[in-house]
Amino acid sequence: MWVEFIGFLAAFLSTAAFVPQAYKIYKEKTAKGVSLTMYLVMLSGVLSWEVYGLMIGKWPVILANLISASILLFIIYVKIKYKD
Amino acid sequence: MWVEFIGFLAAFLSTAAFVPQAYKIYKEKTAKGVSLTMYLVMLSGVLSWEVYGLMIGKWPVILANLISASILLFIIYVKIKYKD
Repeated sequence: MWVEFIGFLAAFLSTAAFVPQAYKIYKEKTAKGVSLTMYLVMLSGVLSWEVYGLMIGKWPVILANLISASILLFIIYVKIKYKD
Repeated sequence: MWVEFIGFLAAFLSTAAFVPQAYKIYKEKTAKGVSLTMYLVMLSGVLSWEVYGLMIGKWPVILANLISASILLFIIYVKIKYKD
């Protein structure tokens, strides 16, 4: 019970964390200080977690990483678009 | 077997991802474009994963999140130090 709650909390926080970064980039119209390598490696990681989630059939893992992947793709898109 | 490999790969990638960002900040001596909120929320998430790992007794989770927490603390420290 507690284990599941902590796991849910962890998944929520580590997914939600990318939102303020995406918002900052959107607001400032630049992604200059953000490392493209970080976001590409993180996207690979998140997609691996997605495969892992599908393999073990845990929907919180599947859902959290699907949301993370969307936000990461947005950051990567903007980073490439702004060429900075 | 495959499940464990994918889980290990996912943990490795999502931990290693923070290294290029930390390096970029170190090299450029600024963390201006990086969202402090993101790193504070991510640290809370990683610490929750740490507790989760301890609860389920999975050392890859414990180890990966311990490393992530160290890199995140470095980024947060530099962000606050550079006041930007």
